[in-house]
Amino acid sequence: MTEKRFAHLHELMKQHQLKTIILNPGPTLAYLTGLDFHLMERPSMLIYTLDEPPLLILPELEQGKLATSRISLRSAAYKDDPSTWVDAYRQALAPLHLDQATIGVEPMRMRYLELNYIQQAVPSAEFTSASPVTSELRLLKEMDEISEMRRAVQIAQRSLLDILPLVKLGVNEKTIAAELTIQLLRNGSDPELPFQPIVAGGPNSANPHLVPTGRPLQSGDLLVIDWGARSNGYCADLTRTFAIGEIDSELKAIYEAVKQANSAGRAASKPGATAGEVDLAARAVIEGAGYGAFFTHRTGHGLGLEDHEPPYIFNGNSLALRPGMTYTVEPGIYLPGRGGVRIEDNLVITHTGCETFSDLSRELMIL
Amino acid sequence: MTEKRFAHLHELMKQHQLKTIILNPGPTLAYLTGLDFHLMERPSMLIYTLDEPPLLILPELEQGKLATSRISLRSAAYKDDPSTWVDAYRQALAPLHLDQATIGVEPMRMRYLELNYIQQAVPSAEFTSASPVTSELRLLKEMDEISEMRRAVQIAQRSLLDILPLVKLGVNEKTIAAELTIQLLRNGSDPELPFQPIVAGGPNSANPHLVPTGRPLQSGDLLVIDWGARSNGYCADLTRTFAIGEIDSELKAIYEAVKQANSAGRAASKPGATAGEVDLAARAVIEGAGYGAFFTHRTGHGLGLEDHEPPYIFNGNSLALRPGMTYTVEPGIYLPGRGGVRIEDNLVITHTGCETFSDLSRELMIL
Repeated sequence: MTEKRFAHLHELMKQHQLKTIILNPGPTLAYLTGLDFHLMERPSMLIYTLDEPPLLILPELEQGKLATSRISLRSAAYKDDPSTWVDAYRQALAPLHLDQATIGVEPMRMRYLELNYIQQAVPSAEFTSASPVTSELRLLKEMDEISEMRRAVQIAQRSLLDILPLVKLGVNEKTIAAELTIQLLRNGSDPELPFQPIVAGGPNSANPHLVPTGRPLQSGDLLVIDWGARSNGYCADLTRTFAIGEIDSELKAIYEAVKQANSAGRAASKPGATAGEVDLAARAVIEGAGYGAFFTHRTGHGLGLEDHEPPYIFNGNSLALRPGMTYTVEPGIYLPGRGGVRIEDNLVITHTGCETFSDLSRELMIL
Repeated sequence: MTEKRFAHLHELMKQHQLKTIILNPGPTLAYLTGLDFHLMERPSMLIYTLDEPPLLILPELEQGKLATSRISLRSAAYKDDPSTWVDAYRQALAPLHLDQATIGVEPMRMRYLELNYIQQAVPSAEFTSASPVTSELRLLKEMDEISEMRRAVQIAQRSLLDILPLVKLGVNEKTIAAELTIQLLRNGSDPELPFQPIVAGGPNSANPHLVPTGRPLQSGDLLVIDWGARSNGYCADLTRTFAIGEIDSELKAIYEAVKQANSAGRAASKPGATAGEVDLAARAVIEGAGYGAFFTHRTGHGLGLEDHEPPYIFNGNSLALRPGMTYTVEPGIYLPGRGGVRIEDNLVITHTGCETFSDLSRELMIL
């Protein structure tokens, strides 16, 4: 399995004329090697230059993990005194002759810390984004990966249903978020959740990325819950919106518009359609309802070992959808000071259309 | 409070002749503004140039958070289409005249993603590590910060005691880690733990940074539990080691050596001593017991809004300890294939010595 993934990386690097790639701890390193390193102040990196065996530079105290690597790796370990690290990097990199090399890195992972160690070891090297390679590498999910994502969605759904009886007038956002987190762990999510649950009631629900507060639920509130689970590294990322008691007619209207936009976005998800078309399908419904200005984000994002990864579902993205791509469809309408609605599902493109992993009701539920 | 912190930043930047600093989401940004942003594929940054008001560039959908900022900020928000972001950065940065500027960044936070946006907006700018400034900025904790750390340690200790009855023969590492995580949340830790608990039994305990496995506890095992909690952002990070049934005499001997090394490291922690002296005090005990080669890491690390931050307690670090510094003392001995011991406490340097936050027994407990 993993040797096949390395071969795929090799092919993509040749195709994109990238001779060297350096990965620091994160999902691509885990995808290729099965190794899970802590991203910290001690720099760890996997260096892969075409036709050389992959080399892992790491702190001595992480060496114990190498035994579980799914591929054979050369390694160079350094001790805990930071003043020795530049030399350790210099020595380990010297045999690879990276002078004048263009080194591909992952923009969202590679930090100034690691870049600086590489630059001190190989001052003439230049950096470029390896995204064209790494995005494609993990873009089409294998059967096993899809099974993990289905399982993550099941854990997430069950956990929400388990805590729903607690969600009522007077309970605050933080309490609901904490109970949901506990239930996700009890139901078998990996301990590292993709993100902390967002629980946002009343005016707070108009803020798409709120951190839960101590505000108690009030009658007439919309309540947005955006939560995830992880199964062996693979993410689920769902959102449902509820009404606390009777809500006013405009809030009901935006709920219906978002529900239909979610449905339209999923219906547009099929092989050959573009990511941009999925966004437009959802956006057209909301614009038609007169709330286009209040749908302030893209329709969705890819999902896999990362909670946000390609394909990104935004207007103008010409990427053609292919079987095995997995992403969220999550339109929303946010009325500042009043409240917001978001309904988010996760799906995989199939040969004939798509399979939505989530089957939680999308009808407005009054709690 | 926060305006004072900004004034401190300003002073330190002048002192280190750094005119501009750019912070992306993380603890320093939170420390200065009270704002908590998600680190994601959309670049957000706070730009501070001496004598200009601070400027925050952020995605439109995060704008709702600005209302809770503790300081006044100028902001520039961009929409969700990534093709517009370079221009958004160019426009927002233009009035600051950063051409030829040397921009300080946090090495462990700033990513190639953000560096690349800055470089496209200001091609002639150069980057440098802002660590001399940011390390000093948060190095001496205020009373409120110390109270949060005390509370985090209390939550962590209580949670371990709560789950200890479950820790016995036949239970596996993953189960213990999951129950401990649940208990930490129930006892009031912030949902974002500083790290996932390490639970490592038998030979696994010889691996300082293990991810918990399905291995059930066996008689004769050493069991290392390294876990943390967070209170309003501030971290606790503790380790205790247990025996499962009767352990052999060498494992008992390394336990005693580590216990004494922990005590020596804490005793050496006082104003005017250096961080390196604390490391040596602990290390000397372990070397004296004949296990120096098996103490493969430094004695400790600073603790605060980050789980690992300055001061780092390693041999040769000449940093003089001052009241208000907070760090871990966590010597360990790891015998490959057999087992390991680590005992970790958290303390603050006081005017006369130090205060250890943790008061959990350090005697060998047989479970």
